[in-house]
Amino acid sequence: MIVVKVGGGDGIDRGAVCSDLAKLWGEGREVILIHGANAETNRVAEALGHPPRFVTSPNGMTSRFTDRRTLEIFEMVYCGLVNKGWVETLQYLGVNAVGLSGIDGRLFEGRRKATVRSVEKGKVKVLRGDYTGTVDRVNRHLLDLLLGGGYLPVLTPPGVSVDGEAVNVDGDRVAAAVAAAVGADVLLLLSNVAGLLARFPDESSLVRHLTLSELDQRLGWAQGRMKKKVLGAMEAVQAGVGRVVLGDARIDRPVSRALAGKGTVIECGRE
Amino acid sequence: MIVVKVGGGDGIDRGAVCSDLAKLWGEGREVILIHGANAETNRVAEALGHPPRFVTSPNGMTSRFTDRRTLEIFEMVYCGLVNKGWVETLQYLGVNAVGLSGIDGRLFEGRRKATVRSVEKGKVKVLRGDYTGTVDRVNRHLLDLLLGGGYLPVLTPPGVSVDGEAVNVDGDRVAAAVAAAVGADVLLLLSNVAGLLARFPDESSLVRHLTLSELDQRLGWAQGRMKKKVLGAMEAVQAGVGRVVLGDARIDRPVSRALAGKGTVIECGRE
Repeated sequence: MIVVKVGGGDGIDRGAVCSDLAKLWGEGREVILIHGANAETNRVAEALGHPPRFVTSPNGMTSRFTDRRTLEIFEMVYCGLVNKGWVETLQYLGVNAVGLSGIDGRLFEGRRKATVRSVEKGKVKVLRGDYTGTVDRVNRHLLDLLLGGGYLPVLTPPGVSVDGEAVNVDGDRVAAAVAAAVGADVLLLLSNVAGLLARFPDESSLVRHLTLSELDQRLGWAQGRMKKKVLGAMEAVQAGVGRVVLGDARIDRPVSRALAGKGTVIECGRE
Repeated sequence: MIVVKVGGGDGIDRGAVCSDLAKLWGEGREVILIHGANAETNRVAEALGHPPRFVTSPNGMTSRFTDRRTLEIFEMVYCGLVNKGWVETLQYLGVNAVGLSGIDGRLFEGRRKATVRSVEKGKVKVLRGDYTGTVDRVNRHLLDLLLGGGYLPVLTPPGVSVDGEAVNVDGDRVAAAVAAAVGADVLLLLSNVAGLLARFPDESSLVRHLTLSELDQRLGWAQGRMKKKVLGAMEAVQAGVGRVVLGDARIDRPVSRALAGKGTVIECGRE
């Protein structure tokens, strides 16, 4: 069982990812795909006159401030345009894909965090009305039902709160939780960078291999969105996923190559 | 088994529909929900600078001309905003809903009609690049899998072509095909009108009961979108669905009331 997360940044080759997945699926590998849609959401939000707003928390994490209108735009792009785009591409290649968000069947459920702390001009402000949440529980029953029926699940944020509200959740953390829940052998986190870079953005500084204990020390290397990927990788390995690869989704055969170790390979490291 | 289709016009009370469905679901009735999103799609298309274009075919049917950009906007609103809105409202009420389009698992499949004939200023023009299709086959396997697992399917256009392309399909025809495929006892087609009106828009002229043979003669009564509802109703009854009700989704307890016969009741009429 492989869980593949593909980011939503520019430059990702959806056709190459899907062709590669179709080949693996045809060989009998069980696959779950999770995708993002960050860059496209920003463009649609701008076009609709509700531009994105990002906040930086006191611990240095950047996230999208998600008021109700932003959540609606987020759903349009993640669950509509982009999820159905992935499903269509896979169907076109003969893979019987089914696209779902975390609200559907309460696929990934957590707690809503209605307030968020934001550092602005050196001061910490509390912002209210945020629809952001955690991923605490994965509905493995529904995933098993689909996989058992011969369908490839294509999953996307948002998730759902315990109260049944849609909440923005981080796609990399979703991928880690899904990989842990289904007992995946491998989790691939593919995006528009080559992997974890010791000196971002210098791609010649790619870190090829890390153990969990090394990763903990080197979290500081991760810049921007890579921080959440590294956190997702740590969570997955701690939860028993054998191997996580931070790989490149801009290249040909991106899934097979990440499976073969191209990118940053993260393992538990008890040798 | 009940199949409920709710239109996408203004004035529909989503909360009332979902409360009513939650009650029926809690009593053990099996339900499949299908929804539209017409009015909201027009608004988003306007806001994104790609306003809707409608064409009237030589036989008097009006439909949305769906170029690829329109199809993307259509997916954003139908599969994103509106489908996840229905699922969220049902989840909030404790119903484990799962939202899917016709592309997902090839749930409803047909033929793409890439050209459409349009009557403009009395002349018939042929328009190319249309992503519109028919509904020829329903994937009952996936619906049974979900219903058997305790999930309420919430379905939305688009459908999928045999070649795996997303295609705009009419929601009422989808509802008829789904009701026939699952052997539903009743199909409810709820919208923002009271039913079939003999003198549209005079609601006091509501037609309370029709048999299939009467319906055939009175297709001329149906105006605008009601034409497709009447066609959907005819297809469903011809395919063995016991009863179709054209009912009102603007009122309290809209599902129970339509089940009780409020609206236009259409039956085979072999007495």
